[in-house]
Amino acid sequence: MITLLSDFGYQDAYVAVMKGVIAAIAPKIPTCDITHLVPPQDILAARFNLLTAYPHFPAGTVHLAVVDPGVGSSRRAIALQTPSGFFVGPDNGLFSGIYDREPIIEAVHLSKSDYWRISEPSKTFHGRDIFAPVAAHLENGVPIGALGDFIDPATLVKPDFPSFINYANGALNQKPVRATGSLQYIDGFGNLITNIPGDVIPDHPWMLTVETPDGPQEISGAHTYSDVPIRTLVALVGSHGFVEVACNCGSALVNLSPSAQSLVTVGSIASLADRI
Amino acid sequence: MITLLSDFGYQDAYVAVMKGVIAAIAPKIPTCDITHLVPPQDILAARFNLLTAYPHFPAGTVHLAVVDPGVGSSRRAIALQTPSGFFVGPDNGLFSGIYDREPIIEAVHLSKSDYWRISEPSKTFHGRDIFAPVAAHLENGVPIGALGDFIDPATLVKPDFPSFINYANGALNQKPVRATGSLQYIDGFGNLITNIPGDVIPDHPWMLTVETPDGPQEISGAHTYSDVPIRTLVALVGSHGFVEVACNCGSALVNLSPSAQSLVTVGSIASLADRI
Amino acid sequence: MITLLSDFGYQDAYVAVMKGVIAAIAPKIPTCDITHLVPPQDILAARFNLLTAYPHFPAGTVHLAVVDPGVGSSRRAIALQTPSGFFVGPDNGLFSGIYDREPIIEAVHLSKSDYWRISEPSKTFHGRDIFAPVAAHLENGVPIGALGDFIDPATLVKPDFPSFINYANGALNQKPVRATGSLQYIDGFGNLITNIPGDVIPDHPWMLTVETPDGPQEISGAHTYSDVPIRTLVALVGSHGFVEVACNCGSALVNLSPSAQSLVTVGSIASLADRI
Repeated sequence: MITLLSDFGYQDAYVAVMKGVIAAIAPKIPTCDITHLVPPQDILAARFNLLTAYPHFPAGTVHLAVVDPGVGSSRRAIALQTPSGFFVGPDNGLFSGIYDREPIIEAVHLSKSDYWRISEPSKTFHGRDIFAPVAAHLENGVPIGALGDFIDPATLVKPDFPSFINYANGALNQKPVRATGSLQYIDGFGNLITNIPGDVIPDHPWMLTVETPDGPQEISGAHTYSDVPIRTLVALVGSHGFVEVACNCGSALVNLSPSAQSLVTVGSIASLADRI
Repeated sequence: MITLLSDFGYQDAYVAVMKGVIAAIAPKIPTCDITHLVPPQDILAARFNLLTAYPHFPAGTVHLAVVDPGVGSSRRAIALQTPSGFFVGPDNGLFSGIYDREPIIEAVHLSKSDYWRISEPSKTFHGRDIFAPVAAHLENGVPIGALGDFIDPATLVKPDFPSFINYANGALNQKPVRATGSLQYIDGFGNLITNIPGDVIPDHPWMLTVETPDGPQEISGAHTYSDVPIRTLVALVGSHGFVEVACNCGSALVNLSPSAQSLVTVGSIASLADRI
Repeated sequence: MITLLSDFGYQDAYVAVMKGVIAAIAPKIPTCDITHLVPPQDILAARFNLLTAYPHFPAGTVHLAVVDPGVGSSRRAIALQTPSGFFVGPDNGLFSGIYDREPIIEAVHLSKSDYWRISEPSKTFHGRDIFAPVAAHLENGVPIGALGDFIDPATLVKPDFPSFINYANGALNQKPVRATGSLQYIDGFGNLITNIPGDVIPDHPWMLTVETPDGPQEISGAHTYSDVPIRTLVALVGSHGFVEVACNCGSALVNLSPSAQSLVTVGSIASLADRI
């Protein structure tokens, strides 16, 4: 199976063109859209959607992801192999969620034009001319090493993205703060998804602080949306495993208007209350 | 084949996650989206879209439908078997269009966690953790009875939804009214679809009255859009078999602004004209 | 494989209904959406999207396209066979991009109701009742001639659409103008796509003039978006092979607001500069 993710939208035929190219090379392989509504050129949104979806697909699945503001420039076209499967697309940080999480078995710079649609690809549509045919050839059993030169996984691009810091179990533990991080994605329901993993949440009552244009906002932690009244903000661990800010039957985005990388802090209620 | 219907939208990876879960359990089974743009938590819109689509799929198809405002609460997760196929989702009335129309062979409360993705499912995403894996196991041939406890079909939830009443052929016949019902769905073209079946329409000229914020509006019946001038309202039997209000090359929704459950009356023109 | 293109949108179950009908006739045939967001009844937008996508699919693919403002009227339902595959839909110019480009092997008026879903099709949804079943039967190997009466390809509808004129290599060469044409499509990124093929572009510097509500606008030619500064208009040959007007990291549509069929002229910079 080949999954597809892009910022091409559903209005035009660009996604279908990639599927046609795949069908012409690997006719019996099913495809599955992850999403094509990534905001234009938003590498971090693409990274999050891929990160959320890929672990659920069968091992060996080929994941084709094309959010590619650098198309036509010197950014590398790459394929990666991990224990979960294969990843094909531009080397711009889009895949950093994967290599933060599991080992890279092989990484290859896609330099062998034998596996492209045409030897002189379009300057604007590598999804059609390089990435889709390479994904189809991988599904057909072409070894990843045939697609180009091996590269050192340490050279893969990391996005300029704040990491989360977990103070809970280490020497840096400085209460009342337990962990800091940032928003990494805002979904279609207006949920604000942080990059703080759910396992830093304490058993006792906790709260979250998020930077907004109106200053920091404090939100109580809970287990599920309906733990709070309708149209009330709540912090919880979302289905993707990260701490998020939601609004029961509403939109946290509309209520808080934070930016995509707003700072987020998680702490215990008791400790935070001490500050008041 | 497994069909999918939800209110998850196409922006995020939620639908792809369900398809990944399915592919991991039933790798060769094709999936087909009915729609994922059901308005958030709108059980009646989900009910109508499923009702419109399912009769066209091959017998034995598994229909997975997740519009689930009660996720994490005590609402039951269910699977149904009918002569047409299988239906998997929450017991909230979403499937009432099916059991209004055909017999339930078996109904099961999905209580056996052996067929779930994990034994302690997320409180917010049963589509991933319960419904998608159960649908895939049904496609793989697991008998419906293995998935949980049989339940009495009479206990299935019926939505709080006005039924239509057909006065045309019964003792209650009270002209000028022939049938009364309500709007059950407003489609993407702005067509107002009632719950009155097309077979109550008389052979002679007829008209329809719909409640709007500006009072009841009377609309002449016809056979197809082009029977009336451009931008004119018309009542007809839509391709789904229900009486609808449309606007030739326009939107009946924009012209009339009724609410989703507005009262609708169908009668003969002659009788209605008598009232004037 | 069967591709699907329509103006039905993704909100309702209309597309799924066609896929269900296909699955009931040809259960193992995969389908692929080209797009269902064609602006309502916009035959030229449908024509362009089909023209862009179909050459990439395997030979023999069946392309089902339903943008059908004349449904229920006397317009013909047709199937075409070309070296690339089969095309099924209304005879309204939607397929004219194909027969401008490659020979028609057979053209048939779909008059045999044996291959329809029902012998008396709905007046509003021939996609479900005629086109989808016919596409599925073609995939199953039914010969095109069985579907109805052969028709003369010369009688197929041509849209009322300005052709491009190439002055570059012919007796009509009148500098500074090299070619004239019109916009044929505006894509989801706001790129303005002309009907002038990329091969008329000269090797030396060139520019393009497009009619706008503010009068003709001159735009310099280049090779790729990043040849010009951010938020600057640029003319180039797009990935579809036609001359287009784009805006680096922006929308040419928003900047220029031309109409869908605005006149476009391509010439050499030297010659155009002579005029000043």
